[in-house]
Amino acid sequence: MLSFDCDYVAGAHTKVLQKLVETNLESLSGYGEDVYCKSAREKIKKACNCEDADVYFLTGGTQANLVIIASLLDSYEGVISADTGHINGHEAGAVEYTGHKILALPHHDGKIFAEEIEKYIKTFYENDSHSHMIFPGMVYISHPTEYGTIYSKNELEKIYEVCKKYEIPLFIDGARLGYGLMSKESDLTLPDIAKLCDVFYIGGTKVGALCGEAVVFTKNNTPKNFVTRVKQHGALLAKGRLLGVQFDALFSDNLYFEISKHAIEMAEKLKSVLKEKGYRFFLESPTNQQFVILENKKMDELRKNVSFCFWEKYDENHSVVRFATSWSTKEEDVEKLRKIL
Amino acid sequence: MLSFDCDYVAGAHTKVLQKLVETNLESLSGYGEDVYCKSAREKIKKACNCEDADVYFLTGGTQANLVIIASLLDSYEGVISADTGHINGHEAGAVEYTGHKILALPHHDGKIFAEEIEKYIKTFYENDSHSHMIFPGMVYISHPTEYGTIYSKNELEKIYEVCKKYEIPLFIDGARLGYGLMSKESDLTLPDIAKLCDVFYIGGTKVGALCGEAVVFTKNNTPKNFVTRVKQHGALLAKGRLLGVQFDALFSDNLYFEISKHAIEMAEKLKSVLKEKGYRFFLESPTNQQFVILENKKMDELRKNVSFCFWEKYDENHSVVRFATSWSTKEEDVEKLRKIL
Amino acid sequence: MLSFDCDYVAGAHTKVLQKLVETNLESLSGYGEDVYCKSAREKIKKACNCEDADVYFLTGGTQANLVIIASLLDSYEGVISADTGHINGHEAGAVEYTGHKILALPHHDGKIFAEEIEKYIKTFYENDSHSHMIFPGMVYISHPTEYGTIYSKNELEKIYEVCKKYEIPLFIDGARLGYGLMSKESDLTLPDIAKLCDVFYIGGTKVGALCGEAVVFTKNNTPKNFVTRVKQHGALLAKGRLLGVQFDALFSDNLYFEISKHAIEMAEKLKSVLKEKGYRFFLESPTNQQFVILENKKMDELRKNVSFCFWEKYDENHSVVRFATSWSTKEEDVEKLRKIL
Amino acid sequence: MLSFDCDYVAGAHTKVLQKLVETNLESLSGYGEDVYCKSAREKIKKACNCEDADVYFLTGGTQANLVIIASLLDSYEGVISADTGHINGHEAGAVEYTGHKILALPHHDGKIFAEEIEKYIKTFYENDSHSHMIFPGMVYISHPTEYGTIYSKNELEKIYEVCKKYEIPLFIDGARLGYGLMSKESDLTLPDIAKLCDVFYIGGTKVGALCGEAVVFTKNNTPKNFVTRVKQHGALLAKGRLLGVQFDALFSDNLYFEISKHAIEMAEKLKSVLKEKGYRFFLESPTNQQFVILENKKMDELRKNVSFCFWEKYDENHSVVRFATSWSTKEEDVEKLRKIL
Repeated sequence: MLSFDCDYVAGAHTKVLQKLVETNLESLSGYGEDVYCKSAREKIKKACNCEDADVYFLTGGTQANLVIIASLLDSYEGVISADTGHINGHEAGAVEYTGHKILALPHHDGKIFAEEIEKYIKTFYENDSHSHMIFPGMVYISHPTEYGTIYSKNELEKIYEVCKKYEIPLFIDGARLGYGLMSKESDLTLPDIAKLCDVFYIGGTKVGALCGEAVVFTKNNTPKNFVTRVKQHGALLAKGRLLGVQFDALFSDNLYFEISKHAIEMAEKLKSVLKEKGYRFFLESPTNQQFVILENKKMDELRKNVSFCFWEKYDENHSVVRFATSWSTKEEDVEKLRKIL
Repeated sequence: MLSFDCDYVAGAHTKVLQKLVETNLESLSGYGEDVYCKSAREKIKKACNCEDADVYFLTGGTQANLVIIASLLDSYEGVISADTGHINGHEAGAVEYTGHKILALPHHDGKIFAEEIEKYIKTFYENDSHSHMIFPGMVYISHPTEYGTIYSKNELEKIYEVCKKYEIPLFIDGARLGYGLMSKESDLTLPDIAKLCDVFYIGGTKVGALCGEAVVFTKNNTPKNFVTRVKQHGALLAKGRLLGVQFDALFSDNLYFEISKHAIEMAEKLKSVLKEKGYRFFLESPTNQQFVILENKKMDELRKNVSFCFWEKYDENHSVVRFATSWSTKEEDVEKLRKIL
Repeated sequence: MLSFDCDYVAGAHTKVLQKLVETNLESLSGYGEDVYCKSAREKIKKACNCEDADVYFLTGGTQANLVIIASLLDSYEGVISADTGHINGHEAGAVEYTGHKILALPHHDGKIFAEEIEKYIKTFYENDSHSHMIFPGMVYISHPTEYGTIYSKNELEKIYEVCKKYEIPLFIDGARLGYGLMSKESDLTLPDIAKLCDVFYIGGTKVGALCGEAVVFTKNNTPKNFVTRVKQHGALLAKGRLLGVQFDALFSDNLYFEISKHAIEMAEKLKSVLKEKGYRFFLESPTNQQFVILENKKMDELRKNVSFCFWEKYDENHSVVRFATSWSTKEEDVEKLRKIL
Repeated sequence: MLSFDCDYVAGAHTKVLQKLVETNLESLSGYGEDVYCKSAREKIKKACNCEDADVYFLTGGTQANLVIIASLLDSYEGVISADTGHINGHEAGAVEYTGHKILALPHHDGKIFAEEIEKYIKTFYENDSHSHMIFPGMVYISHPTEYGTIYSKNELEKIYEVCKKYEIPLFIDGARLGYGLMSKESDLTLPDIAKLCDVFYIGGTKVGALCGEAVVFTKNNTPKNFVTRVKQHGALLAKGRLLGVQFDALFSDNLYFEISKHAIEMAEKLKSVLKEKGYRFFLESPTNQQFVILENKKMDELRKNVSFCFWEKYDENHSVVRFATSWSTKEEDVEKLRKIL
């Protein structure tokens, strides 16, 4: 069975796992105070070209989202997000569990734009009874988005300007950040990302690690006593080394970017195979997730030989499905897929 | 200055206040255990023709909404509501503060319909990854709605059938219930309401009381230790008599219905005045709130002599405004308004 | 039946109720923006001799406690309180429901002292692993305490010095503040209270009002968007006038202090009756609550003619019971009690 | 530097890591639905001799505690715990963050007893105003406790009887369960544990794994939609295999018990060294944590060559410190310690 259903089917990249093996029996401090966490932090700060950055390691995306959002919002504030944002639909109400409303805006292929965000905020403040409403307290976007699309540098700059104008933080969910940065269509670098938001995270779970997201506060703006907040959410690993060692490996020798690039190359190959075979794309994605519209019969037939992800109903007879590549996708698997499609 | 801006401009109906005066120096038990609370409960049960009802008194609508919703939902459940629902936009995120997501459906003049609710629930359960999503755990509607519209008996029956089919409770916010029941277009009675939902409340704050909402659990289904839950939300009045006495008066001699009817008569008069003067209605409301579209210049001019409520922007040059009547509206004020319009 | 069981058995003081009657049909703004709220605020600020004060009205003590505490604490902070503090034992976990731990210290007749508070805070910061613990984020005391005892000016000054030293706010629960200030043993005035804490409230529910507590932030330190926070907790009355009018009456012509003084005089009379009859006091209380130790048989016998409050078991054969006076206690009732005891 | 400061200084046991390496590139389902999670579940159920068990994997102890407690309690319920319980002092208020009060009882070397628990519950229900208090909703104990002590089978049976009598669940925190079960003084087996509580977890983080706790609901009593609850807390790993593979290895060939036994042997050796050298024990612990009282000067001197954990101040000149062994402790290190002490 060929596997194209998601970007977390394999364990860790060999070099990441190798580093876990090599360091396994060393006696290290707990709770993220070990030498590998420290080293990984320094490498990430350097890769971000951001002296004011503070780096923390969490285990997964939903956890990172809820800890960051709950730490940055006051109780009467909510977070602006695309209605398709992962926090709005696929995290079991984790943000609301921390007491905060998600202020959902209609998306455009997964994205929201500066003008819409500003319009929402202006309308809020113009409303006579806004003191009875949830204040817009931060903006959440993901890069790439749920639909694999990416923001241009100009789009991101404009969003960040709105955030600064209204003095609310911009948070970028980078669960698949490597795949966004390595997209052939991207004009954003990691230092750009660090410069153009207040906090973001570098996804490890979907990009080469067993688990782990590196949260980067970029403007000397880490919430007070952040470690205690992390602990309070049950998100502080006793053996923080598990995350530090992995990110130390990922940010050595450009590994994070190399393996992200591989996933993009596989996605480009996949795209050309899909196009060649006449598949109809649901939207144009320049990253590792590709969405096509299949006749339901065809979908059922294909499923016998390849796993992919049902995304949503298109109409009575058609479905939108997702094929995902990742750092672990093999070129030969794409070739095999060509024969099946 | 004529006052048509809302339905809570005056204190209490004279008979309600009179009863507070008469009983003022009696030594009574606290926390809702006094004789007037008991009497009011019995009168309300009788008016609802509902033997299985349990009645509790809370001070306001937002409080009633959050206490009821938090008491009925499990942590992974959210509440289905019209996107214009009061809980979704005008309660400062009170429901989210208790940890629960509001699952907003597009409204039709403030209403949502059985078919849409069922479609939402079915789509949810058909989704392969619904275990990563918030479960639809109850349905919230208000009657009348935010736009003054009301449900027909048939519409309500169909909504309640869907709720029973999927085993989730139906909750009716009745902050203005009297004005809905007394509407000339209503085919619903108070016993119908009690029969066709799991919990609702009878608004007092906007219908003759200084404060107070009578929460009715209709099917022997009061959440366990409900008084403790109320206390936990800071919603248990030491002098529960304040609410008991008022509802006892409101449910004596048909008072609640009489004064509601008066508000409707005033609203009908107001409507005919507005029509006569050629005003353009934003929508057709059969209750005490009337929405008209005004040119902005006209709006500013009118404001010199009459207070009303800006509702929303209609276009660059026009606004939607609300005129509200209530139990305390005087016929002469509507006449005075006729001269101003 | 004579009633000495609590200080909320009657409705409102006649002058308070009278003012509600007089103003009842005036058209007033909602949500605490009416003229009576404004007037009451000014009178309270003046009575506190505190130009930097901001005053808000809430309906009850538990509500005031949870709203204030949740507004002032960060998520990783808890509130230091006597273990007998009302928030710790008798508010159904309202503070914890908002996410905050109560850091309970052993009480001395209901009180805690500056030295103990400082020791707790110092020990916390000296602990190597305090980043895994709840930070002491504020101090809560009540005045009078649950046992009717009061702080001296010197004791309060020392507590406030500790709070300022560690930069955490001091919050005084004044549900029975009038009875504390009018105690013959009190050397504290209302301006002293305002000066020696960051926030406190003046209890109305137990001192002459139907309901209502006047929350006073004393140092230009109202939490940002406090009205929205209040709304979020379901604690914002639509007809804020209900509270404004009552406090306006209570702070006219020294009424709040006069009626508090009456309760103290009744308590002193009650005390002398109890002493005269040879009753054994559980502790020495200088305010309106008196605690005596009764043989269980005697307790059951007395209950036939007078209501009082069982407080706690003393030993197998004895109980601690509370007799409370209030603004509504009549001298003749104390005389009648003399005959019964 | 010799390391005796805690039981999470090393990575994973070699066999555990080896299994991660072997399975690393297999394509597996996410979110705990992979074959290794399934296999581990079966092995654990078998080791527990408990057909009604449901097993879930979480990453750490605080996370397990908060997810389990929040899932089992209703909003007005709290959890009974020793005042020294990990949840009460060292989890940054994680339980309170979920809205629940911890009802702390005085400990006896870390333990609480059936009689005390029953007395607390009885007193609660006898209190006239218990509806204004937090209900005792479950009992939390840890085995071993924070002080390394263990419950006897008889003690545990009696606690569980009280829980069943009052129909509240018993939850055993087993972060160090292996070290408790392998203690020479233990008369409890893993099947006993499964039988004598409603839910417990088998600690992996401190016993051979990189991270991971296996939560076992023992009576067909998993909270409804538990996976969604886990997701809501940000506690659902995308690559659930990380936990499944590790527990599959730990529960193969008796590994979990063998390595726990090793830690106990090292602890016994450590104890005899400490005794031989005349050290004064703070209490008698039969597990992997040993507490001794050191003169502060001696403590500072020792620290140059061996790391251990400061526990608490004993008096002005003495401190309580903890030496911990684990599965990774080497016999030669204990020998080296002998020379240093």
